[in-house]
Amino acid sequence: MKAVAYKTAGSINREDSLKDVELSRPAVAGRDILVEVEAISVNPVDTKIRKGVSPEKGQWKVLGWDAVGKVVEVGPDAKSFSVGDEVFYAGSLIRPGANSQFHVVDERIVGRKPKTISNAQAAALPLTAITAWEMLFDRLDIRKPVPGAANAIVVVGGAGGVGSIAIQLVRALTDVTVIATASRPETQEWVKELGAHNVIDHSKPIAEQVAALGLGAPAFVFSTTETHRHLKEIIELISPQGRFGLIDDPETLDVTGFKRKAVSIHWELMFTRSIYETADIAEQGKLLNEVSRLVDEGKIRTTVTETLSPINAANLKKAHAGIESGKTKGKVVLEGF
Amino acid sequence: MKAVAYKTAGSINREDSLKDVELSRPAVAGRDILVEVEAISVNPVDTKIRKGVSPEKGQWKVLGWDAVGKVVEVGPDAKSFSVGDEVFYAGSLIRPGANSQFHVVDERIVGRKPKTISNAQAAALPLTAITAWEMLFDRLDIRKPVPGAANAIVVVGGAGGVGSIAIQLVRALTDVTVIATASRPETQEWVKELGAHNVIDHSKPIAEQVAALGLGAPAFVFSTTETHRHLKEIIELISPQGRFGLIDDPETLDVTGFKRKAVSIHWELMFTRSIYETADIAEQGKLLNEVSRLVDEGKIRTTVTETLSPINAANLKKAHAGIESGKTKGKVVLEGF
Repeated sequence: MKAVAYKTAGSINREDSLKDVELSRPAVAGRDILVEVEAISVNPVDTKIRKGVSPEKGQWKVLGWDAVGKVVEVGPDAKSFSVGDEVFYAGSLIRPGANSQFHVVDERIVGRKPKTISNAQAAALPLTAITAWEMLFDRLDIRKPVPGAANAIVVVGGAGGVGSIAIQLVRALTDVTVIATASRPETQEWVKELGAHNVIDHSKPIAEQVAALGLGAPAFVFSTTETHRHLKEIIELISPQGRFGLIDDPETLDVTGFKRKAVSIHWELMFTRSIYETADIAEQGKLLNEVSRLVDEGKIRTTVTETLSPINAANLKKAHAGIESGKTKGKVVLEGF
Repeated sequence: MKAVAYKTAGSINREDSLKDVELSRPAVAGRDILVEVEAISVNPVDTKIRKGVSPEKGQWKVLGWDAVGKVVEVGPDAKSFSVGDEVFYAGSLIRPGANSQFHVVDERIVGRKPKTISNAQAAALPLTAITAWEMLFDRLDIRKPVPGAANAIVVVGGAGGVGSIAIQLVRALTDVTVIATASRPETQEWVKELGAHNVIDHSKPIAEQVAALGLGAPAFVFSTTETHRHLKEIIELISPQGRFGLIDDPETLDVTGFKRKAVSIHWELMFTRSIYETADIAEQGKLLNEVSRLVDEGKIRTTVTETLSPINAANLKKAHAGIESGKTKGKVVLEGF
């Protein structure tokens, strides 16, 4: 089968940073299903791994944690899907990624693709939707208010992949006020379209801007990027007993400043459930089905902003370079082999 | 009125580290009540402030955040207490402490003293019980399990003031298994008496000892002391999606190691509600009444291990020196002026 892969971690500018290769089709077992991949998307995790993680000597490493496709084979213990089903999912960090014609995935972390949107539109959603959903509902628990706080969430990096879906999930499923950060006219417009009640500029100090909204101190902060730059401001703006979540990778994160307000700090990593095969791993399949339903009911929309075709090394390199610029809006998708 | 106070922050060995002084009796207003103090206890917060925080020039600073006494006057808006009521409470960090014959406190953070124990026995409880209660139920939310994790909590520093009451609250109010750490035969015996199911030694690496219990990875860790020493082990031993709480004062606390397991980090500071006068400040009065009920029903016991009398500078110095040794078991109380 066709695949895009690499042997040596490094800069996207290396000629061999990503290559078109031919690999053997994987086999299914247990609760796995085999999916013929039709579209994939690119996330920051792809670029981080490509830069830093080489496979074992002589092996190819396949990235890609977002896929849409058709089920072509099911494992002996698979119960939820049949051959021909259209699915979408983000996969597992401890297995090969989906940048290949065929891909094996545990059915418990797979959802049914929304019927009303294209493969490319659907491919933008799984990883970011799982991340945003788990953060909002399983980690920050934003349906549970903080006494006396503004029932509001600050989404730092609102126009990024996770921010773009987080804003929509908060609007579709709660009455929490969304304060999104975006620093350019086009991204500010984008987060407003997605449902943000208020927009502030994260290239300027954010605590003062939040205070100026006159809502009171927000109960929740969801930092999707550049947390180290904003930490001091977040400590200042968040409500006492508030809940702060983050998903990026600061080199260190000193949280002693949150003690006086008794704030909690919530990590979200959408791969935790699949890495540790936790007892609630099937929650990911369930929440993807909920996301699918919300899309088909017109309550949330895809966050794709750019589609490249076909899925090959040249296009994937463009997508990686875009992500690494830190200036993307929504999601970049690749379609068709 | 008599009080114990100081003018200059510093070592307990200074002659003037704590002095017997005469101060004017405070006045009540709003929801305040005036309490004639009968017993007080000493907590690590007292020694930290005494070492590091001087009052304004010429002023006396009164420590003491744990008091038992009788109500002798009530403010115009006070609703919950009458003259003659016996109360216990921990007070507020932004007001003078209770190491004085008379003391003013907001009634919303005051509970009714347990009827079945002495003033000295009751004085050991408020600050530690509020801290433990808020951590266990408001922060770590230990009644909500972590899927697939052992329904267990590791209490690091189980024999200290907060640990001693935390162990009892977990046993009295939940079915969570308690793994307490204690490093000496006498403290190990003490935490067993208080209800710990398992005891491990925090002077040795704790992750391996927890694993050896065969319970699985614990859902919760409550670190009461020396968190910086145990952090790496805690990251190793806690369950994926587990919840980690701490109350001590590490110079820095880098929590990036918790990301892979998507663990949350919970600060508890029992003064947060009173410092910020949060909308739920009255929860402290309510929980103290619950603690009082549990004591009177014989479900939890005082953690006092030493009582000194009277309340004066000489005895308070002894108590501070004991706390600073880091070797105390349970609580030290002072009684009578």
